[in-house]
Formats: sequence, structure tokens, C-alpha cells
Amino acid sequence: MTPYSCMTTQELEEQYAAVLAHYEHLKAQGLNLNMARGKPAEEQLNLVSGILTMLQKPEDCFDGSIDARNYGQLAGLPCAQAYWADVLGCKPSQVFVGGAASLNMMCDVVARAFSHGLLHSPRPWCKEEKVKFLCPVPGYDRHFQIGEFYGAELIPIPMTPTGPDMDMVEQYVKDPQVKMIWVVPKYSNPDGIIFSQETIQRFANLKPAAPDFAIIWDNAYSIHEFEGDYVPFPDIISMCEEAGNPDMVFEFASTSKITFAGGGICCMAASEANIQYFTDIFGIQMISYDKVNQLRHVRFLKDKAHTLEIMKGHAAIMAPKFKVVSDYLNREIAPLGIAHWNDPKGGYFVSLFAMPGTAKRVWQLCKEAGVTLTGAGATYPYRKDPDDSNLRIAPSMPPVPELEKAMEVLCCSLKLSALEKLLNK
Amino acid sequence: MTPYSCMTTQELEEQYAAVLAHYEHLKAQGLNLNMARGKPAEEQLNLVSGILTMLQKPEDCFDGSIDARNYGQLAGLPCAQAYWADVLGCKPSQVFVGGAASLNMMCDVVARAFSHGLLHSPRPWCKEEKVKFLCPVPGYDRHFQIGEFYGAELIPIPMTPTGPDMDMVEQYVKDPQVKMIWVVPKYSNPDGIIFSQETIQRFANLKPAAPDFAIIWDNAYSIHEFEGDYVPFPDIISMCEEAGNPDMVFEFASTSKITFAGGGICCMAASEANIQYFTDIFGIQMISYDKVNQLRHVRFLKDKAHTLEIMKGHAAIMAPKFKVVSDYLNREIAPLGIAHWNDPKGGYFVSLFAMPGTAKRVWQLCKEAGVTLTGAGATYPYRKDPDDSNLRIAPSMPPVPELEKAMEVLCCSLKLSALEKLLNK
Repeated sequence: MTPYSCMTTQELEEQYAAVLAHYEHLKAQGLNLNMARGKPAEEQLNLVSGILTMLQKPEDCFDGSIDARNYGQLAGLPCAQAYWADVLGCKPSQVFVGGAASLNMMCDVVARAFSHGLLHSPRPWCKEEKVKFLCPVPGYDRHFQIGEFYGAELIPIPMTPTGPDMDMVEQYVKDPQVKMIWVVPKYSNPDGIIFSQETIQRFANLKPAAPDFAIIWDNAYSIHEFEGDYVPFPDIISMCEEAGNPDMVFEFASTSKITFAGGGICCMAASEANIQYFTDIFGIQMISYDKVNQLRHVRFLKDKAHTLEIMKGHAAIMAPKFKVVSDYLNREIAPLGIAHWNDPKGGYFVSLFAMPGTAKRVWQLCKEAGVTLTGAGATYPYRKDPDDSNLRIAPSMPPVPELEKAMEVLCCSLKLSALEKLLNK
Repeated sequence: MTPYSCMTTQELEEQYAAVLAHYEHLKAQGLNLNMARGKPAEEQLNLVSGILTMLQKPEDCFDGSIDARNYGQLAGLPCAQAYWADVLGCKPSQVFVGGAASLNMMCDVVARAFSHGLLHSPRPWCKEEKVKFLCPVPGYDRHFQIGEFYGAELIPIPMTPTGPDMDMVEQYVKDPQVKMIWVVPKYSNPDGIIFSQETIQRFANLKPAAPDFAIIWDNAYSIHEFEGDYVPFPDIISMCEEAGNPDMVFEFASTSKITFAGGGICCMAASEANIQYFTDIFGIQMISYDKVNQLRHVRFLKDKAHTLEIMKGHAAIMAPKFKVVSDYLNREIAPLGIAHWNDPKGGYFVSLFAMPGTAKRVWQLCKEAGVTLTGAGATYPYRKDPDDSNLRIAPSMPPVPELEKAMEVLCCSLKLSALEKLLNK
């Protein structure tokens, strides 16, 4: 195959006719496939069915002398705090255990920051003239949405192969209106990048002008390798403490992609002072999150080592799917020079950069042929990708044969939209 | 026994010496008993152990074609919406199913009202000069706390045997700064009063000046009779709709005192327009609450009729405890004319009115003798009971022998504090 950039107009026209015919052929199949969201496959959910019957009798429901079934223990069961501390490398006293959605706890932190302020806030953020959030791009649409919902100005920070552009981050935090940055530090969403040690150290060393600047460290994929061994990752909380910024970071993790996406547990990890501050606040809104499910999880997952064993089961299901994506793109698209993409070894996404100016069109072509992708632009604040290039591919949910069909549609759409662009059609 | 009011000073002094000796005797026993919170007893939790194993295999985890284990279904599983609609007498489309704590959803409604406004708000409540909440007293401390946390002015409304003083409520809602009233309409906390049909109708017919005035209808004890048959209760949502106020009410309920206090499910019921408004908002903060636990609950509780059967089991455990409270007070205190109390047939509390000016002292005497009560004043906004009289007794948790001992301490403390007051000690 010849790259499109080396083809004559005549050759491009021939290509266009052939690709269009192929596209029409695919469209006629009336497909209904979805690669929009990082949903675990049914096979993965079946992998952890043992969790359903971990607690069977009343006497199973105790963590020491604490009855998980009753009120109390606002910050979670001690065994659940210890579990998360083991997974994240922090201390149990730095853990507040939550319910099914870590996003909900992140949103609570932002909501309370706006209504009441964080630990070191001179005033609630809603009383500030303006509040700015730094947003690595491409990034996670739900992070952006929360910032947008509370009226923060979202500032894009380009991602590099080692994490967000830290020169820019260090520059921006000199502005006292910059109050927050949201990151997914390991297997970033969607790029699948692992922040380098240097990047992480520069995060811990930040010297923000705002006394209440906060890093939302959404460690959603901390143990989610699907290829190769577990990659150790440092504890950001102690690093911030050592750098003299003990209260600057809020880390989040969950079992949404370890056990059940619709019935897991999550945690917030932060300095003891922050945990105390938020325990006082959470104490107003609830008695505790679901402790029965916390106990069920700890009994099933046991500890980090055993959880990593379970993750190998997930990896065995995930890896062939990412291989399908990679194989299709390498075979169909690479020789044409019309797109590039990341090749992650963990997480849930492939970040695809289509020919600039064509992402929306690729999304539309896929949609019309029955394949749903995450909306073009969704990986940028305000859904505005300045290059109209990035698409997030989520291959976890569909079975391999469906995924192959979906990738055929995607590759065809990438070609068609590139040819349309090159031929001004 | 003679009422204290009919005794001479000499007789009172004799009583004081005897009661003090009894108190010192009790204090010397080094008790450690708790009647502070409406916690279910371990026996009650054991009653519903069947829920632990309702879901055992992957194929158990589906509500129709919906996999409860995966992401999605923000407003809850259809079967859980139908379950709550059955219990509350509303429509499934008027139900948003939540996690373990209905208080958390109430707090979310208030938080979003302040940050963004409700459906008919001209502006977010944080932009209003002042926001006022009406608080029936005595009432639930956690309701007051949320209002206080968001800076609302809390206005006490006296309770009557048929519910809050509706003349006052109707008068107050003419003030456009009055935005909210919080009520527990059946077996009110702490009085155990069931609002009369007339009171409920007057709620539905309210003509508030604020277009976004909201009733928080915390139906926490909707099926929680412990004596006598289930008392039917009208659907406030359709009543508000019929009165031309479809969006004025937010109803809440939970299984905290049906299954597990530390691992139940809850719901918010409201007009379809309100459910849509909050579905859009909740969609920003989460993917869904724990749907696996929703399914586990629906499979176990089945429907309202079956849930009422389960409630009879709770009643059999609760009734003897309320009888202990009632017996002690009738025997030890009634003849002395120093206190009065409610005699509820459901809910979790006995509301006790000690001699005015002595509630704090009774609490302290109990505390020093090893019996913890809900803080005196807690049942009033800002923890200020103008009469220093009301105490909330929560007899559900301690086993009967402990409860008898605790009631002995309480009765002795009621006498001692009354005698101190009468004798100016």
C-alpha cells in the first residue's frame, strides 16, 4: 500500500471509489456495535462471581468486633482501609472508603470546595472571581464535565509520552486562580500513558500560588495491566508530604474494573488532615457507605497480591481485544500514513489520532454504519478538539468477532474521511 | 406516689436524698449503655440474612436483559424502581434508586439547589440574599445539620399531634426566602407522630411565594409499625400533582431499617420532571449507584406485601423494647408529674419531655452513670431547645436486660434533675 500523501489525485479518486463501495457494503449489514465506553465484558464480570457468596451467614459480617451490617464507621471498615492502603502504597489512616463510584467522591470534593472550600481555602471557591482547572488533553470527559458543571474555566494541557507537559503545569500554577488539576496517572484515559517518575516528582514538588490548589489523582487503572507484568507505581501521598505539600493531593481508586462496574467499592486517599476534614463533611451527608459490600470485597480480593492474580484473568480477556485493534490499525491504516495511535499495555482505551479535521466525520461515518464510538471531541474540555483529530476506542465490551467487524468499519471510515478531506469532497 | 408539685420542701428533700443514693448506686455499677441512635439490634439484622445469598451465579444478576453488574441504568434497575413505586404508591417513572444512604441523596438535592438551583429556581440558592428552611420541632438533627451546613436560616415550627403547625407553615411560605421544609411524615423523628390526612392535604395545597419551594418528605418509617397493623399512607407525589404543585415535593425512603443499616438501598421519588432534572445532574457525578445490591434487595424483599411480612419480624423484636420504655416511664415517672412523652406505634424513637430546664442535666446525669442518650437539644435547630426539655430515646439497639438498666438510670436521672430544680440545688 502507498501512503495517501504519495498518491496522485487520480489514484486517490480510485481509492475513494473502492473505499466508498466497501463502506456502503458494511453499512448495508445493519450493524449495531458499541466501542463508546470502557465497560468490562460479561466474561470479565463472570470471572469474579465468587464475590457474590463471600458473606453467607450473620457471623461472616464482622470486621473484628464491627458489624458491617449496622450503622457506623463513616470512613469505612478498617479492613477495607487496610486493603486500599496495600493497593495504593499509602497508610490505612489516609483512606476513606466509599461506595460504587469514585467519580461521586471526586464530585463531592469539588462540590464542597465550591460551597465551603478545601482545608486551606481562604474562602469557598464560589466566592472567587474565577476558578481555573488544568485539564491534560486528550483526557477524560467526565472529569471535564464536573469542572464545567461548577463553572470552572478548563485549561487544556497537552499530554506528552511521559505525562502532562509539566513545564506548562508549573507555569500555570503560578496563577492563584488555578485551583485544580485532574489526572489519570497510570494508563491515562485515553492515551494509556504511565506518568514517568520525573513527572510524578514534579507534581509532588509543585509550588502553586493558590494555598488550596488540589491534584485530583484519579488512579483508576493502578493495577490494570493487560500485557506484561504489574508496573510498580509510587505513592503520591507520601511524595507530596516529603515535598512539603502534604494536603495537595486527593487520590481515588475503585474496583469498578476489578469486580463489578455496577457494584464495586472505591476510596479516596489523602493526608490525615484532609481525611479528617472530609470525614467531618461526609459525616453531615451520611452515616457510612455500604460496609457490607466493603467486607464482601475485602474477603474476595484479600490483598494487593491476590488482586493482581485476579487482574491476570482480566488481562487474558482484554489482551486479545486490544490486539484486534492494534492489528487492524497496523495492517489497514499504518501504511496509508493517515493516523497514529497509542499502543498501551494497560487501562481501557486506545487513543487514535485521525487525520486532522476528520475525527467528527469518522465518528459520523461509524455511527451511520452502526458502530458507536465515544463522541469526537469528548476527550477535550468543552468537547472542542482544536485539531478535530482524537478518537477514543474502547474495545473491552464487544466479543472479538464483533470487535473485528467494528474495527473494519472504523478503518474504512478513517480511510473514507481522509480521502474526502484530501479530495475536498 | 405523690406528684412532686404536691410535696412540701421537707418531702422533696427526703425524696432527693433517696433518689441521690439510688443514683450513686447505679453510677457505681460502671455501666456502658447506649440509647443515642436508632440503630437496629443485631437480632434484627440476623432476621434478613437471606439477602446475603440471593445472588449466587452470573445468571442471577440480570434484571431482564440488564446486567446489574455492569455500568449503566443511572436511575436504577427497572425492578428496583418498580419495587419502590409499590412501597410508596407512586409510579416507577417517579423513582430514582440510590445507594446505602437516603440522607446522601437529600444532601445532594440541597447541595445542587445551592450551587445550581432546583427545576424552577430563578437562580442558585447561594446567590439569594437569604434562604430559610422550616424545621418541625422536635425534629431530626441530621436534617437540621444539612441546612446549617449550607447556611440556611432554620426556623422552628412546633409539632402538634397531627403534624407540624400548618397555620404557621402556610404563613411562613408566603415569605419568598422560605425555600424548604423537611418533614418525617409517618412516625416522625422523634415524636412518632403520623401526619393526619388534613395535614398532608394542606402540605399538597401549599401556595409558597418561592417558585422553587421544596418539601423534603423523608418517609423513613413508611412501613415501620411495631405495634398493630400497617397504617396506609397516601402518595404525596400524586397529591401535590392534583393540587397543581407537581414539582414541589421530593420523597425519600430506604431499607436501612428493613434490611441492613450499613448496606441497604434507598430512593428519591418525585415528579417525572424533577427526576429528569436530577438524572441530568446525577449523570455528571456518577454512572449509577450499586445495582447489584438493588437486585439483591428486590429479589429478597419482592414487593410491598412481602416486605410488610418482614416488618412483622422487626416488630416482634422492637415492640418489647418500646414496652420497657413505656412501662418504666409509666411506673416511675407518670405519678410524679415531672415529664410527659409520646407513645408511638412505629418508628424508632420515644420523644420525652423532661421538666423544662432539666434536659441537659438529665443527659449529663445519664452520661456520668454510663448511659448515652442523643444530645439534649439535638432535636432543635442549632441544638437549642428553648425549653431545655426534649430528649430522644432510641431503645432499638440494646437487648432488653440492658435497656431495663438504662431506663432505670434514665428514670432516676429524671427524678434527680427535677428535684435539683425544685430545690434550687
